[in-house]
Amino acid sequence: MIAEKMKPLVANNSAVREMFEEGARLKGIYGDENVYDFSLGNPNVAPPQAIMNAIIDILNEEPANRVHGYMSNAGFETTRYAVAESLNRRFGTSYTEHNIIMSVGAGSALNVILKTILNPGEEVITFAPYFLEYGGYVRNYDGELVVVPADTETFQPNLDAFEELLSEKTRAVIINTPHNPTGVIYSDETLKRLTRILLKQEAENGSPIFLISDEPYRELAYDGAVVPWVPDYYKDTIVGYSFSKSLSLPGERIGYIVIPNQVEDHENVITAATIATRVMGMVNAPSLMQLVIERCIDEKCDIAFYENNRNQLYNGLTGFGFECVKPEGAFYLWMKSPVPDEKEFVEAAKEFNILMVPGSSFACPGYVRLAYCVSFETIMSSMEGFGKLAEKYGL
Amino acid sequence: MIAEKMKPLVANNSAVREMFEEGARLKGIYGDENVYDFSLGNPNVAPPQAIMNAIIDILNEEPANRVHGYMSNAGFETTRYAVAESLNRRFGTSYTEHNIIMSVGAGSALNVILKTILNPGEEVITFAPYFLEYGGYVRNYDGELVVVPADTETFQPNLDAFEELLSEKTRAVIINTPHNPTGVIYSDETLKRLTRILLKQEAENGSPIFLISDEPYRELAYDGAVVPWVPDYYKDTIVGYSFSKSLSLPGERIGYIVIPNQVEDHENVITAATIATRVMGMVNAPSLMQLVIERCIDEKCDIAFYENNRNQLYNGLTGFGFECVKPEGAFYLWMKSPVPDEKEFVEAAKEFNILMVPGSSFACPGYVRLAYCVSFETIMSSMEGFGKLAEKYGL
Repeated sequence: MIAEKMKPLVANNSAVREMFEEGARLKGIYGDENVYDFSLGNPNVAPPQAIMNAIIDILNEEPANRVHGYMSNAGFETTRYAVAESLNRRFGTSYTEHNIIMSVGAGSALNVILKTILNPGEEVITFAPYFLEYGGYVRNYDGELVVVPADTETFQPNLDAFEELLSEKTRAVIINTPHNPTGVIYSDETLKRLTRILLKQEAENGSPIFLISDEPYRELAYDGAVVPWVPDYYKDTIVGYSFSKSLSLPGERIGYIVIPNQVEDHENVITAATIATRVMGMVNAPSLMQLVIERCIDEKCDIAFYENNRNQLYNGLTGFGFECVKPEGAFYLWMKSPVPDEKEFVEAAKEFNILMVPGSSFACPGYVRLAYCVSFETIMSSMEGFGKLAEKYGL
Repeated sequence: MIAEKMKPLVANNSAVREMFEEGARLKGIYGDENVYDFSLGNPNVAPPQAIMNAIIDILNEEPANRVHGYMSNAGFETTRYAVAESLNRRFGTSYTEHNIIMSVGAGSALNVILKTILNPGEEVITFAPYFLEYGGYVRNYDGELVVVPADTETFQPNLDAFEELLSEKTRAVIINTPHNPTGVIYSDETLKRLTRILLKQEAENGSPIFLISDEPYRELAYDGAVVPWVPDYYKDTIVGYSFSKSLSLPGERIGYIVIPNQVEDHENVITAATIATRVMGMVNAPSLMQLVIERCIDEKCDIAFYENNRNQLYNGLTGFGFECVKPEGAFYLWMKSPVPDEKEFVEAAKEFNILMVPGSSFACPGYVRLAYCVSFETIMSSMEGFGKLAEKYGL
C-alpha cells in the first residue's frame, strides 16, 4: 500500500533496526555501562550553558508571538545577519543575510539544495566512504548518486577516479569535511585539485556543476587543524551546516545554507531554495532555536572532550595493533578490519559487548566506524575487550 | 540554473512578494495601526503561559542531552504516548504511541504522508477553495492534484462533482476541516456521504484510497460546534495536525501524524512514514518542543478572542450588506466580492488601507479571504473603510 519508491527503504530499515535491537538486547542483559556502544553519532557532550541562558533570556525579553511566530521562510533576518557576520569574521567573506537560509538541520539543508538544483536523471557524485543517506536524498529528486571508490591510502577523495566519473550528466558533487566516517579533513591540496577538475568539466558542460559542502562537523577539528572554507576554492559552492554537533543540539534541527553571490544565477538559486523550504513543508527552521543561534553564534561545545577521547581510543587501538586512520576532525574513528569481511569482525566484537558500524554501511567494506562521542569511561572500559579481539585476530 | 520543477514556483513567488511589499509600503506611509491587514494567517493570540513555564521546567529538570538530543525519527515515545492518550480521551479511540509520528508542523506532516503513499502519475483530489500549497506538495511526488469545484451555496465539499472526478487513478483525497479559507466545518452528513462514495470507489479500484485530514484548525471551533473525528467515519484516514494555531506556535514547526491501526497495511505505512521523515531530511520534529507538547497537550490558546473577532467582523460586514459565510471555525472569513473580478475589489479595498487575499489564490475567484487573527482594534478601525467600500459598490 506504500509508494514504490519507499519499498526498498522499508526493506532496508529492518537491518538498521536489527542492529539497534541487538544493542538494546545486550544492554538489557549486561547493563548500559557494560556495553561499549560506538555505533551512534549522538553527541554526549552537553550544549554550552549559554544555550539554556539564551532560551530563558529570550522568553523573558521578547514577545512570545515573535519568539514562536512565523517569519520569512528563509528565517529571521537578524539571525541570518548574525550567521553571515560570524562567517565574515572567520573567513574574511562579505556575506549578508541575503546569502543565508536557516534550515531544519543539515539533512533538510541538503534536501533543499538538491530540490533547488537537481533535475530527474542528472547525476550527483560523492566519495566513498560516505553517509548512505545521500543516496536517499538524491533519489528524492530522481537523480542518480554516483559513488567514487575510496582512496584507502589517505581517505582523501580519490580524484583520479573522480575525473573519470564526471560527465555531461553531472549536476552536483557532495563533499563532507571533516568527514563522517573517516575523521579526515579535506586538505588545501585536495580542494585545489578538485576545483581544477570541476572547472574543466564545467567549461566542457557549458553549465554549472554545484559543489555541495556538507559541514556538520566543521567546528570539530583537533591539533589546531584548519578546515578550509570551500567557497574560497570553487565559485559554485553551496554550504549546508548544522549546529547539531558544534552546539550539541541534534534533536532541535537547526542549521543553515550559504549561497554566496559568486554562485551562478545566485538570485534565482536563493529564491528557489527559500521556496523549496516552504514547499517541502518545513516552512521555516524552528523559531526559538533561530533566536538562540543568533545569541550564541560563536559558542562551542567542549571540543577538548572529544579530542581527549580520540587520543585515548586511537592510541589504545593502534597500541593493540589495529590499523586506524588518525581522525583530524569529527568524532569518528575509521579502523581497518583485521579480516576482509568486516561484518564478521563486527559480530566478533559483540562477544566483548563492543558495538561498531560495518564499513559497508558507508559503501566501503573492510573497515569499521567507531563513534567516540561517548563517555571517557566507555572508551577505557572497552579496552580490555579490544585487547582480546586483537589477540583473537593474531595482531 | 535551478531545477525545471522549481521554475514555475519561482515565477509565481513574485506575485506573493508583490502583495507583501505592497502591504509593507502602505504601512510605511500610513503607520502600522492605520493599515488593516487581513491577509496573513499568523496567530496574534499569545501562546498559553503554560508553554513558557514548561520550557523553563524542562530545562531545569531534564538532562540537556535528552532535551536537545536525537530520539527515534518518529519522536519521543513519551510525547507520542501523551498525544495518543489525549486523542483517546477526546475521541474514545485506543491509539498508542505506535500510531503517532511527531512532525515538523502540518506542512511536513502532509509531505511525509504523500511521500509515503503516492506514486508518480497518481491523483490526489481536493475541494476548492483550497490552500494552494497542496498543489506543490502533490507535485513534489509527481502526483496530479485534481480540484473539485466549490459548492458556493454551502462551501461544504461538492460531493456530486467529487463522485465524477474519482477514478482508478485516485490514490488520496485531502480535506481540511475546520476549513481555510472558508471557516466551514465539514458536517457529519458530509463525512458520511464522503465515506460512502470513497468506499464504493475503493471497492471498484481494489486498492485503498487514503483520506488525508489536514487539521491545523481543529481546536478553533465556535458556538460549541463539534469537529468530527474523521477516522471514525472512514477506515483509511490519516490525520495531519499542527500546534501552530491551537497553541500559537507556528514558527516552532511542531505537529503530528496519526496512522490508526484500522488503516490498510498500517504497519508498513507507519514504518514508511517514519523513514520518510528521516529521508526527507527533517530527521525528527524539534526535540524541546516535543517535550513541551508532552506537558501541555491539553492546553489551548485564548479561542474566545478569535470568536469575539469573528462576531465583530461578521456582524460588521453583513451589516454593510456584504455577503459572508459565517465562520464555524478557524480564523478566516470568506466573503463574496461585490463584483465578479475579486481582484478589482481587493485593489479598491487598498484605497482604504484594507488588505485581503483574492479568492483566486484559493482556486475560487469571486470571493476574498479575511484572516481575523488580528487585534480587535484592527477590526474596529477597519469598519469605516468597509463602510465606504460598501457605499462605493452600492450595497
